[in-house]
Amino acid sequence: MTAFTFFKDNWTPVIDDYLAQHLADEVDDQKISQIMAYSVMAGGKRLRPLLFLATLNALGKKIEQPEIRIACGIELIHTYSLIHDDLPAMDNDDYRRGKLTSHKKWGEAEAILAGDALLPMGIQWIAEGSQSVESVSIITKAVGPNGMVGGQYLDIDSTNNASVAGDAKFINKMEWLKTGCLIQASVQMAAVYAQASQIEQVKLIDFAKAFGRSYQIYDDLVDVVETSEEAGKATHKDKEEGKNNTLTLLGITKSRQELTDLIDQAQTDLHGLNGETLAGFLDLYQKVL
Amino acid sequence: MTAFTFFKDNWTPVIDDYLAQHLADEVDDQKISQIMAYSVMAGGKRLRPLLFLATLNALGKKIEQPEIRIACGIELIHTYSLIHDDLPAMDNDDYRRGKLTSHKKWGEAEAILAGDALLPMGIQWIAEGSQSVESVSIITKAVGPNGMVGGQYLDIDSTNNASVAGDAKFINKMEWLKTGCLIQASVQMAAVYAQASQIEQVKLIDFAKAFGRSYQIYDDLVDVVETSEEAGKATHKDKEEGKNNTLTLLGITKSRQELTDLIDQAQTDLHGLNGETLAGFLDLYQKVL
Repeated sequence: MTAFTFFKDNWTPVIDDYLAQHLADEVDDQKISQIMAYSVMAGGKRLRPLLFLATLNALGKKIEQPEIRIACGIELIHTYSLIHDDLPAMDNDDYRRGKLTSHKKWGEAEAILAGDALLPMGIQWIAEGSQSVESVSIITKAVGPNGMVGGQYLDIDSTNNASVAGDAKFINKMEWLKTGCLIQASVQMAAVYAQASQIEQVKLIDFAKAFGRSYQIYDDLVDVVETSEEAGKATHKDKEEGKNNTLTLLGITKSRQELTDLIDQAQTDLHGLNGETLAGFLDLYQKVL
Repeated sequence: MTAFTFFKDNWTPVIDDYLAQHLADEVDDQKISQIMAYSVMAGGKRLRPLLFLATLNALGKKIEQPEIRIACGIELIHTYSLIHDDLPAMDNDDYRRGKLTSHKKWGEAEAILAGDALLPMGIQWIAEGSQSVESVSIITKAVGPNGMVGGQYLDIDSTNNASVAGDAKFINKMEWLKTGCLIQASVQMAAVYAQASQIEQVKLIDFAKAFGRSYQIYDDLVDVVETSEEAGKATHKDKEEGKNNTLTLLGITKSRQELTDLIDQAQTDLHGLNGETLAGFLDLYQKVL
């Protein structure tokens, strides 16, 4: 068992339990709580909270209740983004992780509101867990118009737009904003929270940048490599829907090469840190290589 | 000129200028910035930011750039809530403040994303302006599932539901969550920020509760008393659409009586405070009495 597998197997159930229990305890209305929990407890890998916790671990910071609250706050925010991305006006997806999407299950107004409830609650948990204004500033910037929402806007705006299909700079930017920003924020909040040295912060942020970029390429590759049963959602959809991404730009072979290069880069960035667990996140990509 | 009119006339342009300038400066993508600004600069009364600033004023706190940033953060959040409330899946409104609603002007995905961008940016401005985790906690709770979004959910869930049409407790709760929570938070953040004494905090929160409750009744009365031209949006809509509110419960005469009682209550709550400006907010209601 690798350090990463041990870490993941240890903390994933803690994250899952915290999410389930606190969505039940901290949301007054049972029905809203149920709608929120439906998507949060839909079997996500908890990648971002684990990344936050693994960064703390690399910096020798002990993980207790406040740290779990921050980690779970990140997952609430990630879940909100999935619910809104799936909406009919956006990607119009019926399935996610093998289950009906929120709007298919509960209705469109309910799905919009579930997302609208998860976002501020996620920020609340991060603020209360970290007691840090800087963390709030990091997360709100990462998911705002210059971060995740900005990326989603560029995606919507450029779908079926032939003029950006070959524009690598545009596609890199869009993918970074959509996925990379929140991943980087998860690492950066941990670095700030654990009071990492300047050198450690630079290394960790470089790692997060390479990891975030590679994750989007991985996600696009899953879309073509896996069957929809394996992925738990509609695959082979991007090309049909006129989506522009690194894969449509480079093709499968070159995308795999870029992913391999980014893995090397991310491993190099961790040199000099106690980053065995963090490096293990890169193993995830083996199944598409 | 009353203290309130002087205060309002002094600070409204400062708020408007800050919003316009910072949405232009702080949002990288020009198109997203434009979509966000379209709704933020649509001629709102700036009630919540003014209430925040007037509470600081009552507590003798000087108003400078950080305080304006917090006030404007509240307005970004309020605007997000209006954009999402107007969506086809929600209230399906075509006009707001005499202009096309965001989704009618820019498209549904764009409107959802404009709201999704304004919410975290509003919280960011509040965090950065206040440098206070407690303020972040107050605002995120006020707009989350136990606050504004919870109220909107109850509204959606109960529309055309005859079983709650006569349930005063349910209607009070729904209206409080939808409108009152954010109004109370605006006052409460100011009290915390200005380090009000315990007694001052209690008085101000009591005032905010009465003001928030009265504002919803006022808003419902506007719906029947004003023509749609005066209100800048579709009026007489609530009854047609099977909406349950204090007005449908009590009728016009009793609603006006409750509003008058709440004004008295709010004025009483301000006794012993330097609350002349705050009391002036209650004058707003004269036009429906």
